[in-house]
Amino acid sequence: MKTFGLVLNRDKPAAWSVAKRLVDLILAKGARVVLEPEDARTLGRPDAALPRARFPGAIDLLFVLGGDGTLLGFAREFAPHKIPLLGINVGRLGFLSEAEPDDLPAAVDRILKGDYCLEARMMLEAEWVRDGEARGSFLALNDVGVARGSFSRMITTTVFVDGVYLSRFSGDGLVVATPTGSTAYSLSAGGPIVVPHLDAILLTPVAPHTLTARPMVLAPQDEVSIRIEAPHDHIGLTVDGQLGVQLKPGDEVRVRRAPHTTVLVKWKERAFFDVVRRKLQGDPPRGDGV
Amino acid sequence: MKTFGLVLNRDKPAAWSVAKRLVDLILAKGARVVLEPEDARTLGRPDAALPRARFPGAIDLLFVLGGDGTLLGFAREFAPHKIPLLGINVGRLGFLSEAEPDDLPAAVDRILKGDYCLEARMMLEAEWVRDGEARGSFLALNDVGVARGSFSRMITTTVFVDGVYLSRFSGDGLVVATPTGSTAYSLSAGGPIVVPHLDAILLTPVAPHTLTARPMVLAPQDEVSIRIEAPHDHIGLTVDGQLGVQLKPGDEVRVRRAPHTTVLVKWKERAFFDVVRRKLQGDPPRGDGV
Amino acid sequence: MKTFGLVLNRDKPAAWSVAKRLVDLILAKGARVVLEPEDARTLGRPDAALPRARFPGAIDLLFVLGGDGTLLGFAREFAPHKIPLLGINVGRLGFLSEAEPDDLPAAVDRILKGDYCLEARMMLEAEWVRDGEARGSFLALNDVGVARGSFSRMITTTVFVDGVYLSRFSGDGLVVATPTGSTAYSLSAGGPIVVPHLDAILLTPVAPHTLTARPMVLAPQDEVSIRIEAPHDHIGLTVDGQLGVQLKPGDEVRVRRAPHTTVLVKWKERAFFDVVRRKLQGDPPRGDGV
Amino acid sequence: MKTFGLVLNRDKPAAWSVAKRLVDLILAKGARVVLEPEDARTLGRPDAALPRARFPGAIDLLFVLGGDGTLLGFAREFAPHKIPLLGINVGRLGFLSEAEPDDLPAAVDRILKGDYCLEARMMLEAEWVRDGEARGSFLALNDVGVARGSFSRMITTTVFVDGVYLSRFSGDGLVVATPTGSTAYSLSAGGPIVVPHLDAILLTPVAPHTLTARPMVLAPQDEVSIRIEAPHDHIGLTVDGQLGVQLKPGDEVRVRRAPHTTVLVKWKERAFFDVVRRKLQGDPPRGDGV
Repeated sequence: MKTFGLVLNRDKPAAWSVAKRLVDLILAKGARVVLEPEDARTLGRPDAALPRARFPGAIDLLFVLGGDGTLLGFAREFAPHKIPLLGINVGRLGFLSEAEPDDLPAAVDRILKGDYCLEARMMLEAEWVRDGEARGSFLALNDVGVARGSFSRMITTTVFVDGVYLSRFSGDGLVVATPTGSTAYSLSAGGPIVVPHLDAILLTPVAPHTLTARPMVLAPQDEVSIRIEAPHDHIGLTVDGQLGVQLKPGDEVRVRRAPHTTVLVKWKERAFFDVVRRKLQGDPPRGDGV
Repeated sequence: MKTFGLVLNRDKPAAWSVAKRLVDLILAKGARVVLEPEDARTLGRPDAALPRARFPGAIDLLFVLGGDGTLLGFAREFAPHKIPLLGINVGRLGFLSEAEPDDLPAAVDRILKGDYCLEARMMLEAEWVRDGEARGSFLALNDVGVARGSFSRMITTTVFVDGVYLSRFSGDGLVVATPTGSTAYSLSAGGPIVVPHLDAILLTPVAPHTLTARPMVLAPQDEVSIRIEAPHDHIGLTVDGQLGVQLKPGDEVRVRRAPHTTVLVKWKERAFFDVVRRKLQGDPPRGDGV
Repeated sequence: MKTFGLVLNRDKPAAWSVAKRLVDLILAKGARVVLEPEDARTLGRPDAALPRARFPGAIDLLFVLGGDGTLLGFAREFAPHKIPLLGINVGRLGFLSEAEPDDLPAAVDRILKGDYCLEARMMLEAEWVRDGEARGSFLALNDVGVARGSFSRMITTTVFVDGVYLSRFSGDGLVVATPTGSTAYSLSAGGPIVVPHLDAILLTPVAPHTLTARPMVLAPQDEVSIRIEAPHDHIGLTVDGQLGVQLKPGDEVRVRRAPHTTVLVKWKERAFFDVVRRKLQGDPPRGDGV
Repeated sequence: MKTFGLVLNRDKPAAWSVAKRLVDLILAKGARVVLEPEDARTLGRPDAALPRARFPGAIDLLFVLGGDGTLLGFAREFAPHKIPLLGINVGRLGFLSEAEPDDLPAAVDRILKGDYCLEARMMLEAEWVRDGEARGSFLALNDVGVARGSFSRMITTTVFVDGVYLSRFSGDGLVVATPTGSTAYSLSAGGPIVVPHLDAILLTPVAPHTLTARPMVLAPQDEVSIRIEAPHDHIGLTVDGQLGVQLKPGDEVRVRRAPHTTVLVKWKERAFFDVVRRKLQGDPPRGDGV
């Protein structure tokens, strides 16, 4: 018998009502569900309570109720355990969710029948080095960014790829992204869209002062080292636009392919183009004038 | 007899040695110079001391020794008094400076003979409104920006032009620039280069999340109102990339043409294109392959 | 009594049926209408026939039934005669049309009551010079472009503004646009959107080989001179993307503000932003997430 | 004993003098050289004459004297035979050449000692289909493009990737590029720089009318199918910006990874970043301000 984990964005009321329906559906189908103790209490399912730290050994698949931001956080947490994630979109259309709340019964049926694909998404690993010592290590599904604060002057970074000098960049910062992250912040900064079935590392300068700075696409085995030269301390390291560390001049951020991947449940292969059209281009249906 | 003011970037050692030579040159030519008391002491010219607040009534022209950043600060201060500014470039080539330290004798001669043009540069005035009340007012020669902090999520602003709804912008922020500022931060964000002899207001989104957001050029009489909708407090208002105010959701920033202009001393008209080529494009001389 | 001219895109069947209804409406209201003899015959109104060359002295306003392309052609023809144009949109939403076929009765009423604004749109004049001699002169409402042919190598042009060397551009070509043209081809090439109530000249490089080439905004009094250096003959001069002349290396194209403007009938001022949102951004209504 | 082929851009006088020195050097070192009969005559080496069609079985390496354009042509010709190419740059700095004429003796020494790397560059294969029939097949090292003519209206293409609908593009055209071609025309059109050691296919729209169209990076195994919808016949298919075929509405161009690669002789690995800095960014040396 299958066991599913269920996590949600607790700040979204809609997520709670979807969670309730989803738990009912799973149990009605004879499968098991586990919830964090706090969620189990709120949903009136105390017997489904299990601390999140024990999910990895217990579940076959994790339902994530929320938006892309919610999924990014759980992806970083569950990737090392190879647990497939199925995002149920609550709110605005996302890139990472695969199901809408209206599809719940069909979604549960397909999961139980095994009627889905698993898509492995490349992740990045960032190491923060100060005075020659590793101070922190981060896993990212979308991107690792280095950015100036809103009042501070532009920052300068020197970038090396596998130890070979690439370039110096001055401006608002730099974002190192996965193909999954190519439709997130990197795109805002002018980077290309990269299909998720290609393994690659994007290096996109943000508001570069140098007109010749261009987005670059590196190979997945390349290690990117970013050395901070900013003449001030208002520099942040961000991971998936969420976690943050305050950097100082002289700090180094090394970004490379992570040993883990995020495993996403998908109903079919290559739905990526549909999502790009719907989400970025207002869904011009085929055959219609764009 | 002409009286010149002289101000400098005190943090640059080169500025001090240039200041010394320039004071000597001015006095040798029989003109007068005034300095801030602190600078007068350091330069060994105690009789030239005059508090900066009294410069406006006393001087015909202000020499500014430093880079573009230095000149921006004094431009905001002296614009209301219509004092022409002559930037002497100390350090890297700038857009606003007109003379190099090597040209000092020739520069002083031309100034004394009146052999120069005056170029009036349009400025912006920004009003910061919270809860319906004006909280501050700022003068800008380059630009007025609204930006998110380095760890914060993207911000959303709603923009009106003369009270007419223009658009909503989500991303890192927005910059409203003068033609002078078109070669500064606005350019990094993808804005066009605007000649300084055209009066216009640029509205350039920074790393916009919406792919259809594009730089816009408005008329000089247009008033731009930016209303902050960010779901957080990490939003800064910047003026010429220097002054800063922390904004909150609900705040409004109104930007319009300022009643003042910055008056720059220029050796000839239309040297702007030369500066653009030298500074932005590595000076491909005419006739050579670009 | 008012007399209206009516012209249409003869290739669009919808334009004919709209024309018929419009003629009926005008006559029912007691106003006069004139049509080109060929159109008069087709519409069964032989008494309304008047050669187009005689429209200027006879009409108060010209109805143009078609898309933006249709309107551009008639704008170039009628601008020297200061005849206001009212575009009735047949087909896809345009930037220049003001009325939809559904609005016809209301549109005719407003015209007869004088309930509308006239918006003067700056135009460009291009002079084509070969071997020191003017070979042709063209009026443009949108833009004047210099472009390579599809099989040919990139072309190089040297650009002067009021006789002052600006830059050399290598790539697919250059487009010189009015604010009206800023939402047409110039936008595709990366140029900014310029409000129609600002007079300015845009210079936008198309697919430039030089990374530092950027869109520029010039003053309306600036004359742009483009000298062709392409090592081949596959170079076209286009006017509003319609008229074309084959250029040769050594040819020069001089573009300046035209002495004429196109006068457009508009229901209200500043509707431009609505059109930009609807046409370029899929009409995100205010208050909704973009 | 090694045998080298030597080909050159016959239109460049400098190529002939370099060829002469290179032949002398090779023979002085005791290696063999073969030349096309016409070149052998001109260089006074009739005994070195060999028809080019017989080079593949006879030579170990081909010296190509000229610019990037010259090398592209020979790359397409020699790729199926796996002959390594060493470009000797005559004229402007190129991306594909590895040696300068000044380095000739050192270059020949290194080649004879085997002191070099071989870099395999991915190529594309384009198939032109009309009325369901293949009409032509082309090999490309840089790119395959579909472009409108200079006087014609924009063209619309519908693009499928592995048979899945991607999007419709309206504008000047589309370019499908290899990583090697990412620094050529694709870059002018706004595409990213892709390192040559990553296998990927770039799809870059040229001057797109749709603001949401963005450069895309596809996987090397993806097949791109471009269907032409233009309402006119002025559409060209170009290969490496050189070969051309006139397309018609309804035609289809299928682009996929070629079974061959171009093998380039390189002195060291990862020199790509140096070339990008030198060629695109005016060589800002490391440690210096950019």
